[in-house]
Amino acid sequence: MVDSAGGKEKLGYLGLGLMGLPMTKRLLGAGYDVAVWNRSPGKANALLEAGAKAAVSPRDVAAHASIIFMCLTDASAVEEVVFGDNGLSGADGNGKLVVDFSSIHPDKTKSIAARLKAANGMGWIDAPVSGGTKGAEEATLAIMAGGEAADVERIRPYILAMARNFTHMGPTGAGQMTKLCNQVIVGCAMAVLAEATRLAVNAGIDAKRLPEALAGGFADSIPLQLFVPRMAQGIHSPPLGHIHTMLKDLDTVVAVAQDTSTPVPMAALAAQIFRMGKAVRGADADALEIYKLSAPKE
Amino acid sequence: MVDSAGGKEKLGYLGLGLMGLPMTKRLLGAGYDVAVWNRSPGKANALLEAGAKAAVSPRDVAAHASIIFMCLTDASAVEEVVFGDNGLSGADGNGKLVVDFSSIHPDKTKSIAARLKAANGMGWIDAPVSGGTKGAEEATLAIMAGGEAADVERIRPYILAMARNFTHMGPTGAGQMTKLCNQVIVGCAMAVLAEATRLAVNAGIDAKRLPEALAGGFADSIPLQLFVPRMAQGIHSPPLGHIHTMLKDLDTVVAVAQDTSTPVPMAALAAQIFRMGKAVRGADADALEIYKLSAPKE
Amino acid sequence: MVDSAGGKEKLGYLGLGLMGLPMTKRLLGAGYDVAVWNRSPGKANALLEAGAKAAVSPRDVAAHASIIFMCLTDASAVEEVVFGDNGLSGADGNGKLVVDFSSIHPDKTKSIAARLKAANGMGWIDAPVSGGTKGAEEATLAIMAGGEAADVERIRPYILAMARNFTHMGPTGAGQMTKLCNQVIVGCAMAVLAEATRLAVNAGIDAKRLPEALAGGFADSIPLQLFVPRMAQGIHSPPLGHIHTMLKDLDTVVAVAQDTSTPVPMAALAAQIFRMGKAVRGADADALEIYKLSAPKE
Amino acid sequence: MVDSAGGKEKLGYLGLGLMGLPMTKRLLGAGYDVAVWNRSPGKANALLEAGAKAAVSPRDVAAHASIIFMCLTDASAVEEVVFGDNGLSGADGNGKLVVDFSSIHPDKTKSIAARLKAANGMGWIDAPVSGGTKGAEEATLAIMAGGEAADVERIRPYILAMARNFTHMGPTGAGQMTKLCNQVIVGCAMAVLAEATRLAVNAGIDAKRLPEALAGGFADSIPLQLFVPRMAQGIHSPPLGHIHTMLKDLDTVVAVAQDTSTPVPMAALAAQIFRMGKAVRGADADALEIYKLSAPKE
Repeated sequence: MVDSAGGKEKLGYLGLGLMGLPMTKRLLGAGYDVAVWNRSPGKANALLEAGAKAAVSPRDVAAHASIIFMCLTDASAVEEVVFGDNGLSGADGNGKLVVDFSSIHPDKTKSIAARLKAANGMGWIDAPVSGGTKGAEEATLAIMAGGEAADVERIRPYILAMARNFTHMGPTGAGQMTKLCNQVIVGCAMAVLAEATRLAVNAGIDAKRLPEALAGGFADSIPLQLFVPRMAQGIHSPPLGHIHTMLKDLDTVVAVAQDTSTPVPMAALAAQIFRMGKAVRGADADALEIYKLSAPKE
Repeated sequence: MVDSAGGKEKLGYLGLGLMGLPMTKRLLGAGYDVAVWNRSPGKANALLEAGAKAAVSPRDVAAHASIIFMCLTDASAVEEVVFGDNGLSGADGNGKLVVDFSSIHPDKTKSIAARLKAANGMGWIDAPVSGGTKGAEEATLAIMAGGEAADVERIRPYILAMARNFTHMGPTGAGQMTKLCNQVIVGCAMAVLAEATRLAVNAGIDAKRLPEALAGGFADSIPLQLFVPRMAQGIHSPPLGHIHTMLKDLDTVVAVAQDTSTPVPMAALAAQIFRMGKAVRGADADALEIYKLSAPKE
Repeated sequence: MVDSAGGKEKLGYLGLGLMGLPMTKRLLGAGYDVAVWNRSPGKANALLEAGAKAAVSPRDVAAHASIIFMCLTDASAVEEVVFGDNGLSGADGNGKLVVDFSSIHPDKTKSIAARLKAANGMGWIDAPVSGGTKGAEEATLAIMAGGEAADVERIRPYILAMARNFTHMGPTGAGQMTKLCNQVIVGCAMAVLAEATRLAVNAGIDAKRLPEALAGGFADSIPLQLFVPRMAQGIHSPPLGHIHTMLKDLDTVVAVAQDTSTPVPMAALAAQIFRMGKAVRGADADALEIYKLSAPKE
Repeated sequence: MVDSAGGKEKLGYLGLGLMGLPMTKRLLGAGYDVAVWNRSPGKANALLEAGAKAAVSPRDVAAHASIIFMCLTDASAVEEVVFGDNGLSGADGNGKLVVDFSSIHPDKTKSIAARLKAANGMGWIDAPVSGGTKGAEEATLAIMAGGEAADVERIRPYILAMARNFTHMGPTGAGQMTKLCNQVIVGCAMAVLAEATRLAVNAGIDAKRLPEALAGGFADSIPLQLFVPRMAQGIHSPPLGHIHTMLKDLDTVVAVAQDTSTPVPMAALAAQIFRMGKAVRGADADALEIYKLSAPKE
């Protein structure tokens, strides 16, 4: 698996969206050889100028690379790239590894990984990310991995060109499961911070100063610093995220909690609050517009 | 208000408990003149060796100092120290300021401050703290203040000997209100992290590694780093805090939310979860024992 | 206590509102001697024609009657009638009984009853009612009583002229406590039926037929039959009750649950839903307008 | 479809469990010709003595009858009886109707009905029931139907031998959807009544008398009369229903609410309370043991 150029493996990246583009730039910047592919081809141009190689299909990427990264919108996009026409499953998979940064249901991840292994022997690491586009651009992402320990160590040096934090959480699916735990915390934080902000406003104190006042204490977090001023000032554009995206993740949490007999009253309530927000504000509204659900009547 | 010794005011501190002791040490360490008093006198000894002056009553402290700090357990302790025998209200209050670090109901704060002002002209700043005993020892507390802007600026240099963060949030009561917002966030975080931890455990991933995996991302916070390993490993002694303490604060939040017509579904649910924890585990159990409410049947 | 006219006691009624008027008519219709008083005097005219005696004050009612009924809007109205100028406490109370149909906080009831007993020896029965104005007109009310068993039996024949159902629940305050249990059930039923109705509508079935389909089963109740068609058809005028009234009762439930260490997650959530309804629809909106909180975006 | 014996169709019944047995007895008692089948054959004996005809398979039932009733435990049992070896789909289905009393997911119902129609032309009515074994024995069931209006009218006379209440709610799946609305109401009622009962007990009033006190009012219902005394007295055997059964239904409600963008905060919280009950008391505990979640520490 080690090529002639300094002990490095050849890499691939499928899906050059808001996350894939800056992550690939970091790989190129670290001197790696990266073959790229995107459904709409125009996206790759900036990367090709930076030294990436153009591939004509996922299968073509797999022909050039031994480690194939991908970041796609949902499970059906992942399935299409893996099992569709000219997909990864059609390539020679021996000794090769897929690293999937997408956030999908843990059970789906397990089933796709098993099917691909059976088809051509390719390995799989689920590696969803936290940190958003800002984290991707600054290479400060937190990435949580599920899969074989040896595979996780094999990709670690490449991952660390794109992330600050890379943790092996368990077997296949454990990365997705960890991401769901992340979403429990972040989704609930949105609903809770909306309440704290509204309480401050209704009690006549300056909600915009809450982040400063609580900085460094138990209540502090990136969401406190980022979300509270936006809600207090009515800034919802561009959205930090869409209501339907957070709702989809919390609905998955609730479903996984059903399957694992785990009571999750706070997350289940947060899901319903986002669902109410979707009914009232629309699916594409900024996730923080749930704050408006408690707006006083004018 | 400036005394002859280098432009500094003389200080007092009432209540030398887990917070008051280390905070007073910091004042002494910064070279200030501090008169101290505690209900049970033994507590003051270490401070007297460090240079504090012993006072025989709150009124005696007020006779020596122009700025009187206090950190007490609840509203009735504050009322006793202010209006009881040999209380602050019996002293000459002209130009003097009380700075109350205790966490009490905002309405109570307003009424005590108004009564004291009427009694002897003393000013009042409510200044509840966040950061716990560790923050007090390391002088890294976050302190949120309510009161007159000029009074807040007058005490800032002394406060910064004890805290990293001192924010003026509005008129009298605004500090207490801000502390309640803090408790909304921290109390809900406990309930939410209990769910995320249980979900991880039930799904078969290593919950103890969640803090590492999510470090630096949107889900990160001191509670994530501190609470999750304790719950996952069943460490509840010494308690980080008692169930009844967090429950009392969340009940106050719910009451203030009633008074201000603020919907707080997440905080109200968290209060009920702590109340269930109190029923099942006892009032003095560690607050994080709410995690055990979802323990699988053996 | 038994007068010359056929073994019956003389009665009084204070507060001739939507409940007091029809209840007094029933007492008169059963042949009882009733002295009446109302803050605004015009209300009594129809009753005077039907044979009631006009009294000039609560104290005057107590001079004519040995059992004094009252139905007032809130605790301060009760206190005014009992302890205000020319109030009941100024009369000779020996052997006399107050029967209070108002819904007020159990602790308030206990304190008023104790003060009145100390003032003039009058007894007290708290006897809040369920069934609304329709129940008052048709004498089908359910009345739940707190007080001495002998007192409860003494008033039973008079009560049964106004109610179908009269139950002794325990000592003073027990009637109010039972009414709170009633409100837990009715307030939550409103929130739950709003969800069931919305689910039916969104799934494309005819929600107006739910009452018929579920009649006679475990899901059946007066609220099912009465509320669901109103929500499904958007009928909110005249209101069945105001949002702020149900919210006040649920807030009292939550407060009493705090005092008695009782976890009430469903009631606490319902309270927050009504609070959200108050924010969005206004305090005087029909209580069932909480249904509109989940209205799809147009 | 009308046979020679008095204009009546020939009937069949599949699944002779706690519901099927008494329902079939009612059909026989009304003079209908009924062919019966059960997976374990012994169950049919009492019915054969009462005049039922024994069939050797579902397909055999369909050969003898034009209307085939069934009441089975879950969707996979329904699928087995319809599409398995010697299932209904193997019979000549022309002009015949299946009436399914089982409670299964509305989408599953729609897909089974469509597949069977395509296989052999048989019609389908989903007709879940409410009222339990008591309702089946006394023929007082409430049955809610989805399907073609003409089909619903065709079966009405037979249904009314087994039920008091038979309502057509809409197309295929509408009966199942209505049953889910029923379960929203009943499942939440359990959780709410547990709170009201605990509140009464903790406040020192006699909870066992709540049903009597609230009879005939807005809070009255079969669950009030049946559940509260059982919880107050700790009667959980034989169970009225299992925790896992109610939890399964509420989880289906939450899933269908996701699919239809319907906020259901109360139902979602009730589901989590039953999930907590499952964790603490076990899946097979009586559903009303959720009451014990708030038991005071001994």
